Amino acid sequence: MSQQEVKIYGHVVTVRRKGKIAFIALRTFDNEEQVTVKKNEVSEELWSLVKELGREYFIEVIGTLVKSKIAKLGREILPKSIRVISKSEPPPIDLYGKIEAEWPTRIRFRYLDIRRPKVKAIFRVRSTAMNAVREFLKKKGFIELTFPIIIATATEGGAELFPIIYFGKEAFLAQSSQLYKQSAVAAFGKVFSIAPSFRAEKSRTRKHLTEFWQIDVEAALTSKKDLMDLQFRLVNYIIEKILEENEKDLKILGIDKLEPWDYYEVINYDEVIDLLRRKGFDIKWGDDFGADEERALVKEFEVPFFIPQFPSSITAFYYMVDEKDPRKAHRIDMMGPGEYGVEWSSGGLREHNPKRLKKRMLELGLKPESFEWYLDMFNYGFPPHGGFGMGIERLLQTILRLERIHEVSLYPRTPDILKP
Amino acid sequence: MSQQEVKIYGHVVTVRRKGKIAFIALRTFDNEEQVTVKKNEVSEELWSLVKELGREYFIEVIGTLVKSKIAKLGREILPKSIRVISKSEPPPIDLYGKIEAEWPTRIRFRYLDIRRPKVKAIFRVRSTAMNAVREFLKKKGFIELTFPIIIATATEGGAELFPIIYFGKEAFLAQSSQLYKQSAVAAFGKVFSIAPSFRAEKSRTRKHLTEFWQIDVEAALTSKKDLMDLQFRLVNYIIEKILEENEKDLKILGIDKLEPWDYYEVINYDEVIDLLRRKGFDIKWGDDFGADEERALVKEFEVPFFIPQFPSSITAFYYMVDEKDPRKAHRIDMMGPGEYGVEWSSGGLREHNPKRLKKRMLELGLKPESFEWYLDMFNYGFPPHGGFGMGIERLLQTILRLERIHEVSLYPRTPDILKP
Repeated sequence: MSQQEVKIYGHVVTVRRKGKIAFIALRTFDNEEQVTVKKNEVSEELWSLVKELGREYFIEVIGTLVKSKIAKLGREILPKSIRVISKSEPPPIDLYGKIEAEWPTRIRFRYLDIRRPKVKAIFRVRSTAMNAVREFLKKKGFIELTFPIIIATATEGGAELFPIIYFGKEAFLAQSSQLYKQSAVAAFGKVFSIAPSFRAEKSRTRKHLTEFWQIDVEAALTSKKDLMDLQFRLVNYIIEKILEENEKDLKILGIDKLEPWDYYEVINYDEVIDLLRRKGFDIKWGDDFGADEERALVKEFEVPFFIPQFPSSITAFYYMVDEKDPRKAHRIDMMGPGEYGVEWSSGGLREHNPKRLKKRMLELGLKPESFEWYLDMFNYGFPPHGGFGMGIERLLQTILRLERIHEVSLYPRTPDILKP
Repeated sequence: MSQQEVKIYGHVVTVRRKGKIAFIALRTFDNEEQVTVKKNEVSEELWSLVKELGREYFIEVIGTLVKSKIAKLGREILPKSIRVISKSEPPPIDLYGKIEAEWPTRIRFRYLDIRRPKVKAIFRVRSTAMNAVREFLKKKGFIELTFPIIIATATEGGAELFPIIYFGKEAFLAQSSQLYKQSAVAAFGKVFSIAPSFRAEKSRTRKHLTEFWQIDVEAALTSKKDLMDLQFRLVNYIIEKILEENEKDLKILGIDKLEPWDYYEVINYDEVIDLLRRKGFDIKWGDDFGADEERALVKEFEVPFFIPQFPSSITAFYYMVDEKDPRKAHRIDMMGPGEYGVEWSSGGLREHNPKRLKKRMLELGLKPESFEWYLDMFNYGFPPHGGFGMGIERLLQTILRLERIHEVSLYPRTPDILKP
């Protein structure tokens, strides 16, 4: 029998006693270990201590690690000493209940909810995903930058912005790094950031967070094909890394069929409208998709897909309008497929001609004078460029098959949730 | 002569003509290349195009790459074709002037200033540093999380917070992830985040940014020695990575003597006060250091140093008070040494007893009822823990020997700067 001296720390999950033997299920930071206490082999003091242990007690166990045929991890710890480091009141939510607590209760006690193995598994996957994004983009020659969160100008209008008072001046929380990442493209060629973004929309859907983390990518001299390929490969790289590093977590989350996709599909906006109309939706050319329409659409697909062009009227000013058909703009949305599919990203080719930009701003009801520095920068040899913004929580919602995007945010923010 | 067909893109730095030969200095996204145009070897059209090129024109050059004894990179491009992709107006600031533009002018035209090789070098180093932090902490078993930026409760009081209106409720921008990273320690054991932080201080010093990126680290079951060692090794790891990946950038920045430090020093708060008094500062036990005092202090050191204890009265409530001497708390500041030295981080051991925390809040004039969820979490088997928050721009200010911290922020925010 192989054995080894160990000192471990963890939270008490349960204590089961059967006569002269007690089993402590102990949640360490990484695993769930079994501590087996045999009355005849430990001191009286230790045996009586076991009786006092309660759920979520944080304890130190010193003992011998031995192989076990019945313990979950195939091993158990025979303790020489147990020390209570921090006692616990009975937790107000059952961290190991067969039926999960209701979401409002989970959020109220989120600081306990995040101790649950399922929740921890999600965030271990998220950590892998964030790292994978950087690794992939770095390999492709992108430089990581950070852009301002407090900005003076509304990027896309203003309706969805949180205003703040900045030393007596009006300012906003950035919805995206759009204007700034574009400025950086002329210097660095290929740039990205992963940063928090804020949307003051009163959207209470399964896919909206008021505060989320966005992968912002921008590249000079790119094409629509390049942008679609890059995003597809990025997503697959993330999946490969998750498979490599989070096998245990995927098991905890009950995900057994994750793999990179073999290909992506492309569907034109016009075809999307036709498809939705056939499905009975009251939608016409020029409309953006609502939540129900999007859900119906993504269910039709088994692989990620792109919509590579949108009506100019529902496309932000910084996209390039199609010269051949000015009713359309070179905006590309990437959509996750299936039951848990959502829009993952929006991007496309950008306009870099300041006169056309100004014209577009006016068409869309924006004031060019609010964008003074942004418009000016295009006067100095600006390279053609494009990019995208991808929501990391959206992507993981689909990959991890989560009904609610809020699960991917440690402390989610929604119109109703500001605490904890 | 080795030669190779190439197609490159870049901005025109200068065009020098000498009779029948013209030299175009071309700033690509990565380098500065030399394009050598020989009148007798190119078309008339190409030769006359060269005359029209102006500074910051963005051009495409197709030609042959050949070795050169006189060109900077030891190579030059003999063009077959040159195509102007975007013309440029004459830039309002001289991107290559021997005398740098004044800072207010550079900020006004920051979107052009960031095209300067010196500025780009700083951000290539910063990108390396951010990645090094994650790599190092991941190797040490830390998980990367993200914490809310919009928070309901002021972490340290409220004077330095930007208030926002959050769907009709009062909220703030987070100064740090303090309360949230502590909550995560009980679940994950070792956590970190790199995220924007905000301080509404009206500080106009060489080391203050209103918006900066902070490395937030927190670990269960740590000690003051562990925390100091971890930070010292982290900083050295960052330096090693910079030396590995940014040789060219360090050259551009004129930094020739960068290397990891052999050791760190520890100086007690009491000794710091004595030292400053000897230097003529009017400071007494219990005071925090001002900007001038800090500057005088760091100049006395040649290696990073820690101040491992502070008066409780100037230490935030979440630090553990020294049981043996309650006038002191287990707060540890890490300081960068020398002329460009500044405070890099603040951290220490945290209090995890809710009663003592409540008492400390009251002592420091805070309302415990604003910290309801935070205080509650310590009732559930909370592990002893500690951590630190390190400013990435602060650290790089010292490493890159920059007089002004604002240089390390692509679009800095200060009480006076909100645009661009």
